Amino acid sequence: MINYREAQQIIRGRARSFGRERLDLSQADGRVLAETIRADRDYPPFHRATMDGYAVRQKDLDGGLRHFVIVETIYAGAAATKPLPAGGCYKIMTGAPVPEGVDMVIRREDTVEGKETMDVRMDARSLPAEASPGAWPAFLNIARRGEDLRSGDTVIEHACRCEPAILGLLATLGKKEVTVERLPRIALLTTGNEVVPVEATVGPAKIRNSNRWLLESSLKKWGIVPAYYTHCPDDAAILKSRLEPVLSHDILLLCGGVSAGDADHVPEVLEQLGVQKLFHKIAIKPGKPTWCGVTPGGGLVFALPGNPFSCLVNFALLIGPYLHACFGLYPPEPIGLPLGTSRKKKTPLDEFFPVRLQGTPGRLIPIGLNGSGDIRMGLGASGLALHPSDAGDLAEDAGVLYYTFG
Amino acid sequence: MINYREAQQIIRGRARSFGRERLDLSQADGRVLAETIRADRDYPPFHRATMDGYAVRQKDLDGGLRHFVIVETIYAGAAATKPLPAGGCYKIMTGAPVPEGVDMVIRREDTVEGKETMDVRMDARSLPAEASPGAWPAFLNIARRGEDLRSGDTVIEHACRCEPAILGLLATLGKKEVTVERLPRIALLTTGNEVVPVEATVGPAKIRNSNRWLLESSLKKWGIVPAYYTHCPDDAAILKSRLEPVLSHDILLLCGGVSAGDADHVPEVLEQLGVQKLFHKIAIKPGKPTWCGVTPGGGLVFALPGNPFSCLVNFALLIGPYLHACFGLYPPEPIGLPLGTSRKKKTPLDEFFPVRLQGTPGRLIPIGLNGSGDIRMGLGASGLALHPSDAGDLAEDAGVLYYTFG
Repeated sequence: MINYREAQQIIRGRARSFGRERLDLSQADGRVLAETIRADRDYPPFHRATMDGYAVRQKDLDGGLRHFVIVETIYAGAAATKPLPAGGCYKIMTGAPVPEGVDMVIRREDTVEGKETMDVRMDARSLPAEASPGAWPAFLNIARRGEDLRSGDTVIEHACRCEPAILGLLATLGKKEVTVERLPRIALLTTGNEVVPVEATVGPAKIRNSNRWLLESSLKKWGIVPAYYTHCPDDAAILKSRLEPVLSHDILLLCGGVSAGDADHVPEVLEQLGVQKLFHKIAIKPGKPTWCGVTPGGGLVFALPGNPFSCLVNFALLIGPYLHACFGLYPPEPIGLPLGTSRKKKTPLDEFFPVRLQGTPGRLIPIGLNGSGDIRMGLGASGLALHPSDAGDLAEDAGVLYYTFG
Repeated sequence: MINYREAQQIIRGRARSFGRERLDLSQADGRVLAETIRADRDYPPFHRATMDGYAVRQKDLDGGLRHFVIVETIYAGAAATKPLPAGGCYKIMTGAPVPEGVDMVIRREDTVEGKETMDVRMDARSLPAEASPGAWPAFLNIARRGEDLRSGDTVIEHACRCEPAILGLLATLGKKEVTVERLPRIALLTTGNEVVPVEATVGPAKIRNSNRWLLESSLKKWGIVPAYYTHCPDDAAILKSRLEPVLSHDILLLCGGVSAGDADHVPEVLEQLGVQKLFHKIAIKPGKPTWCGVTPGGGLVFALPGNPFSCLVNFALLIGPYLHACFGLYPPEPIGLPLGTSRKKKTPLDEFFPVRLQGTPGRLIPIGLNGSGDIRMGLGASGLALHPSDAGDLAEDAGVLYYTFG
């Protein structure tokens, strides 16, 4: 039986792009950027005032001048129209362009403002008292043209998700259209004679289908809506007939029917359909019976156990990382953090348990569960922690690996 | 000038629900649940086999019996139809109901399976060797009816977001419809003469509008699409005419025009419209000029500075926490974590800087920026860290507060 890191490695080896598409920026939220982004001009694009105040020449101040005549007011969005004579200054607003050769902006609060003149306050704490060459800081309150980026510089090189700040950055750079990774076509099949839809009357030996909801919501975080969904009874012929038409999908996600029971037809039917097994069973708890294979067309098949907590764990450990790899994103790496309580080892497997990262200092607080079948498994959790196979009982404050749901 | 914690407290004091609505579960993804959820029946709803194997009576094993006759096979979803005679067993599948009075499931791999009989393997490592009363574990591989939850038990008491595991839980409990918090009606106004839309030709003193994208994407994480959007020039009369019709919205989000410049009309126009100021300026960097007020109807107005990084910080510190409070969620608490590098203090303010939480042990790695106007401010960051106003330079591994974007 392989461990989960080996499973991750096998799955990453099967990653492939689902293609790319051009989208309007308004459609790109949450999608994965698939192009190198370069600066279309210098950034800042002009010497920019970072404070409301008065733009002056440093050499005037170094020379002892403290009284200035206001030549013109420069607002954001407009350039100065008049040159600056000796002893002159511009009144200037935050975000406005500072004319070439003018190299300081003195904040309003550091001046005595007149209607047509401005005097530098001798008691301004942020300014030097003396008037000698070099005493005055160059480019005070000015972000100089190109100091962040030069035109043509690479701004985004690696694939990344279009999160709020990235969308803002793309807009700044004039990327009204962007190339993003196409989303995979996913077929989702839940299985099990005991499973009824949420709206159905639930008989004494039956349970309601929760995995459909859990998995669809997990996919939605990536913007993915399954192209196909069905629920299948534990019947090999029906399962086969439902799988056959969707075998060409990029990803097949199945749930239930992967254990050693007489009604567990999923692995056998998949292999009949030409799906090549990559592995069956991972040394983890929960989620051990997972079966994984590759379709004749190269699509990946994840057949998960029917326990909802197992689905959650396998999505975090396998399906999420597979999507990352297919989209060209860096793999999601776990973070080492202290455990907030002690914990007994229960099995020789890698055990995953729901935790909440909180507090100062930040620690992982286990969410109390009555076994891995407890339907409350995700309530209040921010991620999963790992109790490694080779560790004994964990003491409070032991360092463990944390896999965030976010 | 107040600090950000005082600002958060003021804002939380103005929180109010935007009403509630009933939604089909398929529409509830990401929304905030606003009802107490109780167990509709016991969970597990029946004594459930957690392994594929054979259901037997403990007392038979305690009495030394190792050879059993198979009476019937119980599949998931169906109850046994025959009673269990002495010396009999059921073949049983994971998820199937274990009949009352039958109190052990022996795993397939711990038996020698015949067509009509089953023998317990004497060398099965997971089973005791001896045959004496109490030697055999009661309820082996059985999740007993009601051991997780009793019918009527409260399952979800406090407001929470409908994340994958919660949706699965709600489906399990038969909640085809749920009551959720209504989303607020938000008016978004960006301002500034220097700002042009992403698709426009950008003149030498102009910049493209990034805050619209950044803020819309931040709101979308909550499922919120602004009911109104406009860009306004730095003109008090135009600003007033645009604000007046949307003053009844639940939240007004403005961007730019809140500093001390001559073209910064936002606070003045808002006060003319009867918006009562809650505070102007917070002792943070970036984001200091933020103005906050309450409309005659009780709606909150957030007027943010135009710098995109300031918008990001203010969304994380003020708008996000305000939405949490309005939705009845627990406030998002920062987490104390070690800083991965040393850091110089630059101002007497609370300084926020973008970081990435990574590594083992997990540390906050600052994202290199060339000042708070750097357009790359969110690239690769997972959240913000705080360099507190009362701290000097921070040493590597100093504990700081971390505010996640997730």
